[in-house]
Amino acid sequence: MTTEPVHRAAAGALVVGIDYGTLSGRASVVRVADGVELGSAVHPYGHGVLERALPSGVPLGPDWALQVPQDYVDVLRHAVPAALAAAGADPADVIGVATDFTACTVLPTTAEGTPLCELPDLTDRPHAYVKLWKHHAAQPHADRINALAHERAEPWIARYGGKLSSEWELAKGLQLFEEDREVYDATAHWVEAADWIVWQLSGVYVSNACTAGYKAVRQDGAYPSAEFLEALSPGFGGFFTDKVEQTIGRLGERAGGLSAEAAAWTGLHEGIAVAVGNVDAHVTAPAAQAVSPGQMVAIMGTSTCHVMSSDHLAEVPGMCGVVDGGIVDGLWGYEAGQSGVGDIFAWFVESGLPPAYREAAAARGLDPHEYLTELAAAQPVGAHGLVALDWHSGNRSVLVDHDLSGLVLGTTLATRPEEVYRALLEATAFGTRMIVETFGAAGVPVDELIVAGGLLKNRMLMQIYADVTGLPLSVLDSEQGPALGSAIHAAVAAGAYPDVRAAAAAMGRVVRHAYLPDPGAVEVYDVLYREYARLHDYFGRGEAAGGNDVMRRLTDLRRRVRSASAAPVLEGSAP
Amino acid sequence: MTTEPVHRAAAGALVVGIDYGTLSGRASVVRVADGVELGSAVHPYGHGVLERALPSGVPLGPDWALQVPQDYVDVLRHAVPAALAAAGADPADVIGVATDFTACTVLPTTAEGTPLCELPDLTDRPHAYVKLWKHHAAQPHADRINALAHERAEPWIARYGGKLSSEWELAKGLQLFEEDREVYDATAHWVEAADWIVWQLSGVYVSNACTAGYKAVRQDGAYPSAEFLEALSPGFGGFFTDKVEQTIGRLGERAGGLSAEAAAWTGLHEGIAVAVGNVDAHVTAPAAQAVSPGQMVAIMGTSTCHVMSSDHLAEVPGMCGVVDGGIVDGLWGYEAGQSGVGDIFAWFVESGLPPAYREAAAARGLDPHEYLTELAAAQPVGAHGLVALDWHSGNRSVLVDHDLSGLVLGTTLATRPEEVYRALLEATAFGTRMIVETFGAAGVPVDELIVAGGLLKNRMLMQIYADVTGLPLSVLDSEQGPALGSAIHAAVAAGAYPDVRAAAAAMGRVVRHAYLPDPGAVEVYDVLYREYARLHDYFGRGEAAGGNDVMRRLTDLRRRVRSASAAPVLEGSAP
Repeated sequence: MTTEPVHRAAAGALVVGIDYGTLSGRASVVRVADGVELGSAVHPYGHGVLERALPSGVPLGPDWALQVPQDYVDVLRHAVPAALAAAGADPADVIGVATDFTACTVLPTTAEGTPLCELPDLTDRPHAYVKLWKHHAAQPHADRINALAHERAEPWIARYGGKLSSEWELAKGLQLFEEDREVYDATAHWVEAADWIVWQLSGVYVSNACTAGYKAVRQDGAYPSAEFLEALSPGFGGFFTDKVEQTIGRLGERAGGLSAEAAAWTGLHEGIAVAVGNVDAHVTAPAAQAVSPGQMVAIMGTSTCHVMSSDHLAEVPGMCGVVDGGIVDGLWGYEAGQSGVGDIFAWFVESGLPPAYREAAAARGLDPHEYLTELAAAQPVGAHGLVALDWHSGNRSVLVDHDLSGLVLGTTLATRPEEVYRALLEATAFGTRMIVETFGAAGVPVDELIVAGGLLKNRMLMQIYADVTGLPLSVLDSEQGPALGSAIHAAVAAGAYPDVRAAAAAMGRVVRHAYLPDPGAVEVYDVLYREYARLHDYFGRGEAAGGNDVMRRLTDLRRRVRSASAAPVLEGSAP
Repeated sequence: MTTEPVHRAAAGALVVGIDYGTLSGRASVVRVADGVELGSAVHPYGHGVLERALPSGVPLGPDWALQVPQDYVDVLRHAVPAALAAAGADPADVIGVATDFTACTVLPTTAEGTPLCELPDLTDRPHAYVKLWKHHAAQPHADRINALAHERAEPWIARYGGKLSSEWELAKGLQLFEEDREVYDATAHWVEAADWIVWQLSGVYVSNACTAGYKAVRQDGAYPSAEFLEALSPGFGGFFTDKVEQTIGRLGERAGGLSAEAAAWTGLHEGIAVAVGNVDAHVTAPAAQAVSPGQMVAIMGTSTCHVMSSDHLAEVPGMCGVVDGGIVDGLWGYEAGQSGVGDIFAWFVESGLPPAYREAAAARGLDPHEYLTELAAAQPVGAHGLVALDWHSGNRSVLVDHDLSGLVLGTTLATRPEEVYRALLEATAFGTRMIVETFGAAGVPVDELIVAGGLLKNRMLMQIYADVTGLPLSVLDSEQGPALGSAIHAAVAAGAYPDVRAAAAAMGRVVRHAYLPDPGAVEVYDVLYREYARLHDYFGRGEAAGGNDVMRRLTDLRRRVRSASAAPVLEGSAP
């Protein structure tokens, strides 16, 4: 990463990166020359996440999660001027703006891009709103999509580890089609919010290569066929061609110039570059200078998203997806994930920590996580005698099964909370190693692990990841990885760098090899990982593979017991 | 149990039962006619349990646990007069006294019964003291005994489920022989405390049939052979013949009359019947009127001991032992056990319960167990989606392996403490069902489960045991099962009843079928038990049986990591 950047911008040139999260948007003003953030501001969404009812009071079903598109525009109106002010920046120095978004977050619009929920006669219709990434009410639709894809041996299904998510455009679109035909028929475009915000900024609608691939199942230039869609639901055959398909924008490309209206909202100058849209996790890779094959970025928070580029295409079992130009234009972008990480640690502290520990932590001025970490770090590897499976929120990669559940094995009457806590930390590291090894076995080797996200502040956790994977661990050296990643894309779109790789070299911030594997720990963790892997396969790969489907049966039993009378509970529950 | 008792005593006749526990002795004054307890008193042992040092300061090794025999005599001096006073009893009405004891609790004495630790020149020698049941420093000796027994195909080993315990007379005696030859040579008798206390009361040394069988490996009238002992350790061949073998006293038999000295200690009349010694768990069976084949008594506390009589001999895998007349004279007495029960629940409450639960319990005036029970009881069976293995303290029956460990499977981010708590309760019930089914499969069917011990106050736990086993559950209707059981033996020894069965019918106290299985719950628990049994076999029965020895390997790794430098930690740890 020592490529000399080709600066085509003035020495004082600036860019604005805007990161759209689940509850708020953050704008950062960043120096083009070296990626230093000069100022930032956060604006929360006025409506947050709609989970129970629309603003008008219309109730929502279980597992719904909607948003209001004007909240995104409000971020442009408030956070961008505030960030400029915080940076003490002259808007005239800003040469470009770029955004990243949660995904798949998707909305229906008119031909002009007006969200259908803003049409007076559709404002009370839940399906007219933005469906947030964590809208999970389309799970039955996803199940049908996956079953049919395998039945018809659709070629694209292997590009998604064998399974499309209920979070993605197709399942959410099918739900719309089947539950509110009027809104479906009024939908001119089924637009990723990542692209809709660029449309608002520039007046241009292009579909970014990242979400088009990962969330809209675009592979080798095509979407799933009309025949497949018709087989799925008669009348649905035109979904992609009529409502999704759009000019593809490559990542880092200029979508258009900032419109007069958007210039008025933001205080930026009309006509500056607006980059093609992007996704929060994926945009973090260049922020961490991880744009070469073999560099896997793990964005670790409540869950972990793994992204990595490669110069060739492979079918990795259990990955979330592989997309041409999905992370960096010109390379294949791979994505995988662990559905529970930080939230497992939080659950343990919330539900399993006795008063004495909270009191001792408070007396020391530590939060419970810091205190547990300190206690756990005092023990040598393997001293707790525990192995856990980190499936409390199911398993995304490589098993792709949310009916799996958590396990702690090896407890004795002497087992202490910090030991269980450490075992849970280790389990997530084993889960990452499983992903790393699965990629390697599929011909996409991982050479370096780069961590971003909120969990990198836990130094013991980072050392565990290095020791468990045996890989040198680099860390993103920025609190705002996505906003920095967007700023990098803005600089490229503005022509300040020839490509994202060059911009990342100049603007990205990483502490290379911040944690090195300790050989003694690696040796013991190899033993423990083999135990983890054996339990992983036994409980995760199913009866046909010589395993035990007890977790799936218990999940099924739990659902039936909770939802039904006792009588039909037992059908099909035998081990 | 409607046999009319043959009363051969005056209407107001009384007996005294004395229960020697781990930390104190309890005397109860009980009416011969109907078993009503009129008064009782407890006297704690002045020296408690010696685990770190002798009273003189001589330090003890790890896993040692000793007692001081005069503490037992002090119970006679203090608790018996206090119980008589509490009962307002005239000592002239007391026709007999009987004792029960922890076992195997064993001491070396002179030919006259003087404990060696009372000889001035041996008072600083740890091996001269009483070795309490939980003295576990003889585990290496037990391992050698078991290996050699299987190597030589000793016929008695099958009578103990394939394994002698390190707690028993032979392992403790071998440790004495090999670690302090002078004390061993000075040992005229290697005496169970259960028999030593009877010796103090009556001046007569008889070996009770119960401990002779369960703890001293007496089978079919013989002890392990001199050849076996010599092969174990040269010079040890005379252990049983020289130091253990003694006249056998059948349970309920009169050992002798109360000595003048003991009459002075207790305030009882010289010459009244002193019964043959007995063991706390076993003596509880007649207290609960469980003296017939098929009636299994579970004494549930920190651990559970299962005792049951049968009219025939069978080899039950993983039982603790089967002894002719070991519980009731004339029947084969079977013993099994679960090494962790109440202590697992206590561990969970101590180490895994968050502050909000403790506060809510306190606000309601409940202890945490009561509060958790109340919350857990509100859920239908199977709603938590969890299965646990109750091996936090190892597994006594039927796997006989203390290197096994605990497991909780099925946790999610929504799992709450009361759900884990309930899963642990259920796991111990599944463990009891495993024992019940193993007995049944070996030709010793269990028809009724009778619960005694401290845990019977938890009504939800009792209902779970009924539902899990599918058996009607009866409960001992006395707070002091062992003391009542001893009183029953005292009455028989005094001739008030022809045998223990008749005395139990008159004096025992049981609520027959206090809990009946609920058919709906039984059905769901059958499903969950099959999951438990499959995990039990997978983690418990070893690699050769298609299982996974991960728990044993983790236990081994834990020991080596904690005790050694990192270098040699890994040998032989591969899964």
